[in-house]
Amino acid sequence: MYGWNDTIVAIATPPGIGAIGVIRLSGDKVFEITNQLFQAKNLAEQPANTLHVGYIKDGNTLLDEVVVSVFKAPSSYTGEDVIEISCHGSSYLQQQVLDALIRNGARLAKAGEFTQRAFLNGKLDLTQAEAVADLIASNTAASQNVALKNMRGGFSQILKEMRERLIQFSALIELELDFSEEDVEFADRKKFLDLLTEINDTAKKLLESFRLGNVIKNGVSVAIVGNPNAGKSTLLNTLLNESRAIVSEIAGTTRDTIEEVINIKGILFRLIDTAGIREHSQDIIENMGVLKSREKIQLADIVLYLYDINNLAGSELSTLIGGIKKQNDQVIPVANKTDCSGENLVQLKKEAFPGTIFISAKMNSGIELLKEKLFITAGGGSILSENIVITNARHYSALQEVQNSLNEIMEGIKKEISGDLLSSDIRRCLHYLGEITGEISNEDMLDYIFSKFCIGK
Amino acid sequence: MYGWNDTIVAIATPPGIGAIGVIRLSGDKVFEITNQLFQAKNLAEQPANTLHVGYIKDGNTLLDEVVVSVFKAPSSYTGEDVIEISCHGSSYLQQQVLDALIRNGARLAKAGEFTQRAFLNGKLDLTQAEAVADLIASNTAASQNVALKNMRGGFSQILKEMRERLIQFSALIELELDFSEEDVEFADRKKFLDLLTEINDTAKKLLESFRLGNVIKNGVSVAIVGNPNAGKSTLLNTLLNESRAIVSEIAGTTRDTIEEVINIKGILFRLIDTAGIREHSQDIIENMGVLKSREKIQLADIVLYLYDINNLAGSELSTLIGGIKKQNDQVIPVANKTDCSGENLVQLKKEAFPGTIFISAKMNSGIELLKEKLFITAGGGSILSENIVITNARHYSALQEVQNSLNEIMEGIKKEISGDLLSSDIRRCLHYLGEITGEISNEDMLDYIFSKFCIGK
Repeated sequence: MYGWNDTIVAIATPPGIGAIGVIRLSGDKVFEITNQLFQAKNLAEQPANTLHVGYIKDGNTLLDEVVVSVFKAPSSYTGEDVIEISCHGSSYLQQQVLDALIRNGARLAKAGEFTQRAFLNGKLDLTQAEAVADLIASNTAASQNVALKNMRGGFSQILKEMRERLIQFSALIELELDFSEEDVEFADRKKFLDLLTEINDTAKKLLESFRLGNVIKNGVSVAIVGNPNAGKSTLLNTLLNESRAIVSEIAGTTRDTIEEVINIKGILFRLIDTAGIREHSQDIIENMGVLKSREKIQLADIVLYLYDINNLAGSELSTLIGGIKKQNDQVIPVANKTDCSGENLVQLKKEAFPGTIFISAKMNSGIELLKEKLFITAGGGSILSENIVITNARHYSALQEVQNSLNEIMEGIKKEISGDLLSSDIRRCLHYLGEITGEISNEDMLDYIFSKFCIGK
Repeated sequence: MYGWNDTIVAIATPPGIGAIGVIRLSGDKVFEITNQLFQAKNLAEQPANTLHVGYIKDGNTLLDEVVVSVFKAPSSYTGEDVIEISCHGSSYLQQQVLDALIRNGARLAKAGEFTQRAFLNGKLDLTQAEAVADLIASNTAASQNVALKNMRGGFSQILKEMRERLIQFSALIELELDFSEEDVEFADRKKFLDLLTEINDTAKKLLESFRLGNVIKNGVSVAIVGNPNAGKSTLLNTLLNESRAIVSEIAGTTRDTIEEVINIKGILFRLIDTAGIREHSQDIIENMGVLKSREKIQLADIVLYLYDINNLAGSELSTLIGGIKKQNDQVIPVANKTDCSGENLVQLKKEAFPGTIFISAKMNSGIELLKEKLFITAGGGSILSENIVITNARHYSALQEVQNSLNEIMEGIKKEISGDLLSSDIRRCLHYLGEITGEISNEDMLDYIFSKFCIGK
């Protein structure tokens, strides 16, 4: 189906100085090419999965002392013969070895080309290949966990089952078409509807998991808003455990929005400190800051509305929170400066505003509760319970198409449409399912997907 | 001699996102520790120099799918059991695996600790170990070449021979001491003097190679000076083949000194563009620039004095070059803008100033000749002929001590001093020789040397 007969090469480790740099080759001619530079022994004659120490020489010029790893087709990452050369960690030196390999017949690999070959050789399906890129980009326990599950084929398995059961029914219906003049019904429509409902439920669940998937992959943006001097920057610093924002006693200090990242139980929260919300500031620059805040409220996943517990009457508070809710309904009210108010006031307010978190940013009290609230609001509670989570927009839109076509099939059955129309709807559904795992693919789509990988993977 | 029984671990690849990240372990317990995370098979039972695919699990938490390389003592880099874990290239993920290994009994390695163990286990001597660090830092063909020669023991071999021949004579002289009452002379003083002269010549040659070694390791600084508008920035750009410095028609444009690096036949030249030399500029900032230029002339290895061939009378030129030579005697006069002058003028000037290079920076003519002149002036001509080159300041100062003690021994022989005094001088010489290769060493010295390595090497 896909033909290639060249041998690709790339530096697989990050650029920069380290102890080791690894150069990876894959293809029919890896041994032939590497043998020309590595003269200690004939690598083609070495058993698979073995390590060999020796010198890399470009003609008479000694380039490096290296360790060569030998992997053999089909038991390698790409499914082809693979060699990895572990060089000393100088970028200059790795470049020299890379150049020599290219001069001896290897071609510089495109981004993701090793994984693309692994896919084309059937070593992994498309969702697994995409999970490899996600794993490399993972920066939290949650993103690592989801990527590993998908790399091991968790998501593929569900899709495969959906597909196989659809194909069974599809075959029965196509059989009916062969006997169409006899008006037989091999495929029990009632059973088929049940199956479709079941598949639809799974698709729905997967689609719903995308919100969480997004949270896991991209983090959650949290806008911290509130009146001037409510303590927004202090709260940000307390959450970060360091002094990132400039904190002062003068109301209106923070003009630029500041973004910082914290990790709460494996989910990344991007905290955005915004200028205080004041209606009639005289300061133009400050007003620009206020405008920016409005925008941030609308774009944020969660809004933390911070107020000084000692400064805000209950009615005013309700109005302000109501105003924000019109722009973003995920609002967490946070009453700050409990250290400056009596126990009684805090108790009273707790009863009056049950959804509010009470903290003292300055004294670091109530912060753990606030973090927990952020985690729950972001949907973090379901991270452990969810088995398979979609994190990939491509999968999401294909699944939406799957769901659309499922609904059309169900409509069709209820309307008792003809078998050939039904069959064509089923084929459309199977097409979208196959597109996710890559059973159905085209070169443009693959090139696009793998171009987002890093070089050497 | 040196005792240690812990197992060290470090990430050996550069930080950042790549396809692969390698974690390296060395010590008695590498198998015990890694087996707790890698459950596919018992790594201790696998043959040396083999590769194994499997999952890394921290308890029930899956961390990564990896390839494990197994090396066994004494045939490994450190001489101990060594494991390298090739992870996916996410820094987060590598950190997770590293943490798990540390929790299971490994200790985070200090900078250079793997190579330090290799040295202490006799896998390489100190000059070879230092060459490993040089190889990793190498950024030109010349620095790579010298580091590789030293890593393979070229320098060590010369020192070893010097040492062995000295020890032979030393033994004979010590023997004389045992028979001191009999006034015998086992060690032929004449032959010994010949030997010492020979060794001294070698030491001298090695010491002289340090200038070239420095050039190879640290590059050559070249100050480009000349009157305003002589075309210094244009020359810099032509040498760099790109527009780094701002070039304009207004005299005095370049205020900051600019440093750029070019590689001429494997030697790095750091080109420093300086403000034009003008005596009475009104502009204070420009005057500060001029002061900086003076300083650069004194500090540079080579001064390129650039002038406009159409604008400078011969007598004036001689005065100016004479002035620069007082500050730095490595001056290359360069006549620019030959494109704007007649053939006759160029021919005339060529005859009058034979040491001068004639170029047109704008038309890229004469530039190759200029590069060749820079290469020769830096001593590049001897790169290929020199077999062993010293690049390390520690070796240089130890060799100076060797030379001093050699001279004392020779003086002593000429003065016919007693055998025991002679013997003590020889021992001092042997001490300094041994210090270079690490046959004589102390922990502080080793810690200092290896602390300059990168982590994971």
